[in-house]
Amino acid sequence: MKDESFVKEIPAKQANFSEWYTAVVLKAELADYAPVRGCMVIRPYGFALWENMQARLDARFKATGHMNAYFPTLIPESFLKKEAEHVKGFSPQVAWVTKGGDSDLTEPLALRPTSEAIINYMYARWVKSYRDLPVLINQWCNIFRWEKTTRLFLRTLEFLWQEGHTLHRTQEEAQAETLRILDIYVDFVENDLAVPVIAGKKPESEKFPGALATYSIEALMPDGQALQAGTSHNLGQNFTRAFDIRYLDEDNTEKYPWGTSWGVSSRLIGALIMTHGDDQGLFLPPRVAPIQVVIVPILYGKDDEIVLTRCRQVQEMLNAFRVKLDDRPQYTAGWKFNEYELRGVPLRIEIG
Amino acid sequence: MKDESFVKEIPAKQANFSEWYTAVVLKAELADYAPVRGCMVIRPYGFALWENMQARLDARFKATGHMNAYFPTLIPESFLKKEAEHVKGFSPQVAWVTKGGDSDLTEPLALRPTSEAIINYMYARWVKSYRDLPVLINQWCNIFRWEKTTRLFLRTLEFLWQEGHTLHRTQEEAQAETLRILDIYVDFVENDLAVPVIAGKKPESEKFPGALATYSIEALMPDGQALQAGTSHNLGQNFTRAFDIRYLDEDNTEKYPWGTSWGVSSRLIGALIMTHGDDQGLFLPPRVAPIQVVIVPILYGKDDEIVLTRCRQVQEMLNAFRVKLDDRPQYTAGWKFNEYELRGVPLRIEIG
Repeated sequence: MKDESFVKEIPAKQANFSEWYTAVVLKAELADYAPVRGCMVIRPYGFALWENMQARLDARFKATGHMNAYFPTLIPESFLKKEAEHVKGFSPQVAWVTKGGDSDLTEPLALRPTSEAIINYMYARWVKSYRDLPVLINQWCNIFRWEKTTRLFLRTLEFLWQEGHTLHRTQEEAQAETLRILDIYVDFVENDLAVPVIAGKKPESEKFPGALATYSIEALMPDGQALQAGTSHNLGQNFTRAFDIRYLDEDNTEKYPWGTSWGVSSRLIGALIMTHGDDQGLFLPPRVAPIQVVIVPILYGKDDEIVLTRCRQVQEMLNAFRVKLDDRPQYTAGWKFNEYELRGVPLRIEIG
Repeated sequence: MKDESFVKEIPAKQANFSEWYTAVVLKAELADYAPVRGCMVIRPYGFALWENMQARLDARFKATGHMNAYFPTLIPESFLKKEAEHVKGFSPQVAWVTKGGDSDLTEPLALRPTSEAIINYMYARWVKSYRDLPVLINQWCNIFRWEKTTRLFLRTLEFLWQEGHTLHRTQEEAQAETLRILDIYVDFVENDLAVPVIAGKKPESEKFPGALATYSIEALMPDGQALQAGTSHNLGQNFTRAFDIRYLDEDNTEKYPWGTSWGVSSRLIGALIMTHGDDQGLFLPPRVAPIQVVIVPILYGKDDEIVLTRCRQVQEMLNAFRVKLDDRPQYTAGWKFNEYELRGVPLRIEIG
């Protein structure tokens, strides 16, 4: 029966967690595989989810004084090498541009695996005085990591994220920023995504390459694994020294500022799916759901116009929410129920 | 005198238009040169302008039924070659990834110079029935063109843009979409950016590689040159045939849909600067200005608290706008006047 086709193709979550996950992502049309190994396409429904997440997180960053900017994707090889741990940590995962137009490049260019190197290079040109501090900049962009094993949303060669990069006058200020952002991540992930997390400091062996200390939020997945859902790094003076960022302080001496960096990525969508999904498909938290309320008319070919008029009235009454009226005549109500269950719409109203 | 330093470093617009342009972009901190030739950094003030532009344009796309998605940056070489004119048009400008991690790639991957190839490949997997049409998808992303001569915002190796890619059942629908988007561009650029444009069809020799017809909006710059500010292409069936996108129509026969694509880029910021700027610097249209109103307190060291209190009251009264109160004590009022003139803030309120 066509009405059950959605659910039939999704394996039970308990029985095969990994296959269940992939089936939900594909069937709910959140994402699809791209032709390049390990790359994905974020489809409109998945991207609308990301846009809602982005808007709510971006508002929190702006409320705490951060501004967005955009730094180039292409990073000279020599830049990545300036901070020793950094290059060691990232070099196995870097994709390299070696040819532009018809010419071979004299120096290979990395597709950013993270932007500390290029951003700190620019900061060295912009920061001159204590009056220029703090620098509180974030960017939303695409990131590249040449991973061997990939999973849709969880680990892909290219993904979307935000990365904040800040500079401060003192070590204390940098540490306060590191923890302030960690708090924002906890607040966002727990309250907007309804995914409980544990926040804490990573062991030395797992910290970010080049950081003094890495803090993270970890979400416990139904398969018993912890998923790293966001990180906030106290970079100390490692990058400001490597890129020679110096400012003239009020006491007329030159000093190196203290840095932080922090990020969450489209991997959060994976955490969301795994935490809330069930054998019928997705389950989206109302604050980020692309459709918060769906109205499905029950049509029998009799009094259909009356039913549709009432549907439109209800749609209008609820216009403070993201409401969709699905009045497509070519699909049955039962087919639509399955579709919106698969797609995790929080509230369904049936009229007829 | 420090108070005049801003303006002194900007050449007169009449005398040297090109140098004036670059000086305004750099001094107003809209953008800066990146270390890779031809690449730029969009600084927070420039990016806030882009965010406002993006929000207003995105709302227009969504109001006409389009949704956003995200397609991968990396495009296999063989894809670009599927449409003959397309590869011929873009191949001299493509940047190539040839190495991932420690391995050489078997097939070079292009950094997207535009996404028709990868998107139509995906559409071929998604579109099966007339019920799947129209497909109305847009993406906001970074784009790469290996240009020889570059100018900040106007022509760079990497830039930001939006690209819509749609599929329709009939030639008429595709043509209507092409012109609907052209109208949106005219409306946005003329009403929100206050830049007058001429909209029309490009000659055969200047159309998009692979298109049936290209329409554009052209803005006349003060140096007498026309700047192409946005394009909308009727792609006919060129890409749907090349990528074998077929759908089963209501009459039970298989058909190729009709395509369009269209885009505007961060180049619009260049058009804005050139059209409105003057010898004092930028002049930003209120609808997209990052700061719409700046309040500058005039402080003499006497009654300063009364002045600042009143400033905060006025700021509160105007909170429907993007208002900044510049109460930094380390800068004089005169210095601030120059700064906000350089930065093109539409309205300045002086209190004191």
